Amino acid sequence: MEQNKFTYEKLLKFTCSVFEQIGCEAKDASSAAINLLNADIRGIDSHGIARLSSYIRIWEARRINAHAKPKIIHETQSTAVVDGDAGLGLSVAPFAMQVALSKAKAVGTGWVAVQNSNHFGIAGQYAMMALEHDMIGIAMTNASAIVAPPFSKERMLGTNPIAVAVPAGKEKPFVADFATTTASNGKLELLQRKNQGAPEGWIQDNLGEGVTDAHILKNGGALLPLGSDLTGGSHKGFMLGSIVDILSGVLSGANFGPWVPPLPAYLPLPEGMPGKGIGHFFGAMRIDAFGPGEDFKKNMDLWIQRFRSAQPVHSGQNVIIPGDPEREAEAILRKNGVVLHPEVVSELKSIAEKFSLVF
Amino acid sequence: MEQNKFTYEKLLKFTCSVFEQIGCEAKDASSAAINLLNADIRGIDSHGIARLSSYIRIWEARRINAHAKPKIIHETQSTAVVDGDAGLGLSVAPFAMQVALSKAKAVGTGWVAVQNSNHFGIAGQYAMMALEHDMIGIAMTNASAIVAPPFSKERMLGTNPIAVAVPAGKEKPFVADFATTTASNGKLELLQRKNQGAPEGWIQDNLGEGVTDAHILKNGGALLPLGSDLTGGSHKGFMLGSIVDILSGVLSGANFGPWVPPLPAYLPLPEGMPGKGIGHFFGAMRIDAFGPGEDFKKNMDLWIQRFRSAQPVHSGQNVIIPGDPEREAEAILRKNGVVLHPEVVSELKSIAEKFSLVF
Repeated sequence: MEQNKFTYEKLLKFTCSVFEQIGCEAKDASSAAINLLNADIRGIDSHGIARLSSYIRIWEARRINAHAKPKIIHETQSTAVVDGDAGLGLSVAPFAMQVALSKAKAVGTGWVAVQNSNHFGIAGQYAMMALEHDMIGIAMTNASAIVAPPFSKERMLGTNPIAVAVPAGKEKPFVADFATTTASNGKLELLQRKNQGAPEGWIQDNLGEGVTDAHILKNGGALLPLGSDLTGGSHKGFMLGSIVDILSGVLSGANFGPWVPPLPAYLPLPEGMPGKGIGHFFGAMRIDAFGPGEDFKKNMDLWIQRFRSAQPVHSGQNVIIPGDPEREAEAILRKNGVVLHPEVVSELKSIAEKFSLVF
Repeated sequence: MEQNKFTYEKLLKFTCSVFEQIGCEAKDASSAAINLLNADIRGIDSHGIARLSSYIRIWEARRINAHAKPKIIHETQSTAVVDGDAGLGLSVAPFAMQVALSKAKAVGTGWVAVQNSNHFGIAGQYAMMALEHDMIGIAMTNASAIVAPPFSKERMLGTNPIAVAVPAGKEKPFVADFATTTASNGKLELLQRKNQGAPEGWIQDNLGEGVTDAHILKNGGALLPLGSDLTGGSHKGFMLGSIVDILSGVLSGANFGPWVPPLPAYLPLPEGMPGKGIGHFFGAMRIDAFGPGEDFKKNMDLWIQRFRSAQPVHSGQNVIIPGDPEREAEAILRKNGVVLHPEVVSELKSIAEKFSLVF
């Protein structure tokens, strides 16, 4: 295989071994590794194995509990709060989504807020857990503050993604998964690596002025909410990010706003944290809780077909149905392997050395 | 009072009389009038009494049933589907939200999809019905297609607003209410009346080219999803509008996408409509379904205070908490009266004449 290109199986096996080395039980290590690699394999490589070294560093800083036992600490028939026991978000999130699915089976919908967790990779994969049960799945998380609301030069919110997965009949499911900022941090990191400037409307400097220097976040800059500026509707992006923060952080008893703990281990924890760890929020709705499931699937097929066939601006470039690009990426990457950035490869080699593994 | 300025009470009484004249029962007419006027009084005058003449015209076209009896046609413990019986959305929506509140009282959360309804005014007011019950309220609706997805020159979605209301303790509640487009149709209508151009990123022409002519919607143009273009994240605005359409339209058995019936009575109904009327979606979540309600309120106060005190870009211009501008507008407008556009006044006078009322 060409340099820096690796099969999915190799990356999965390695990641699983690393999680076992930090103390995860075999079953947890395997599930966490699959969930981390789901980002790489769906083409969202900023959230995948590229983050493994960050995870190891915060584990070394004793901010991740490899022996975590997530548990329900409050519940009603349709809701629960899960304490993640400071575990890997990659293990806590599927536990919590499973609770949401069980609640939905019983009473039509299930809603689970999570406290005391860590980064969970891509949100979409947890929303997608609902699909095989003929349910609509919802997943969101807060994250450490790198986004400035309108009128603020201070970073107050994470990129706070929202994912919604909707089953269809003959068509592939609709899967939306997006940061509530104009550009995700992953897209910005890509420009940083290439030493390229960012488009206008993505970032501002430490005084709140719009800039194009992709490295500005290191100097007190911030990502902008979806909409970029007030004329572009950035107050709406701010509201979206706030809703995610409130459901994931305030409702769960996790931290919120500028108090969400940072991913890089070298950054100190925020002072006066009001809650526990990072927060997530999950939802599951049985489609047959709203009428015959077959009717829903037939109409969802119609929705997808109708949108795909909207009159295109440029012939041959049709409307993209959410979920299509990631599915296409997955088909190619599973077959051809995943290309990693040389920096990521070198970090993985260091991890291998640390744990006497081979990469 | 100055010309074209009217007290809230006068507008409310007139609107109530008009709804009684078309055949609504007194109680329904009163509640519908209050819900329509809630838009004017919160400063969102595009969705208020300015739409009364449109409502009357679609009633004359027999597309609104003044004697509607909305009813539950499917339910589980946490969900319901409501058939609006082709009634005024202003009456159907509060009925459905009340069902969501009852479900939430029983099992923690309640989720109601609505079919066979009509325009319901501003979404925020129904989300806010949850507040007095110490619940988080959610409201959304689809609407006739005037928004083009990325890559489409065809109008496929309505402005599909999302509203989320969150109770706080000592602070006023957080109330987000926004169209999933860069600019709402109301803002565009304002520019049309003033014969002014629109900012870049709000609209495109019938070929899919970005333009600034605010009248372009009359010539096959379209509003753009939040984000404006792909660099600005318009695929995210499209995903948001789609989620609202799927929950409001597909899940409920209403129409969706380009099949949602138009508000202007002179426009023909779309061919091959797959569902019934316009669709809405409502949610209610008891805050004490996720832990002690007092803890939530204390932390929500902290959230609001912390965001309000984020370091401002310009001293004195602080971060705006969602809900503040509408509350401020309401305090002023209830006291000083509502100014209506001369065209709206003249339409109201015509309505008065039609029904032998005085305006």
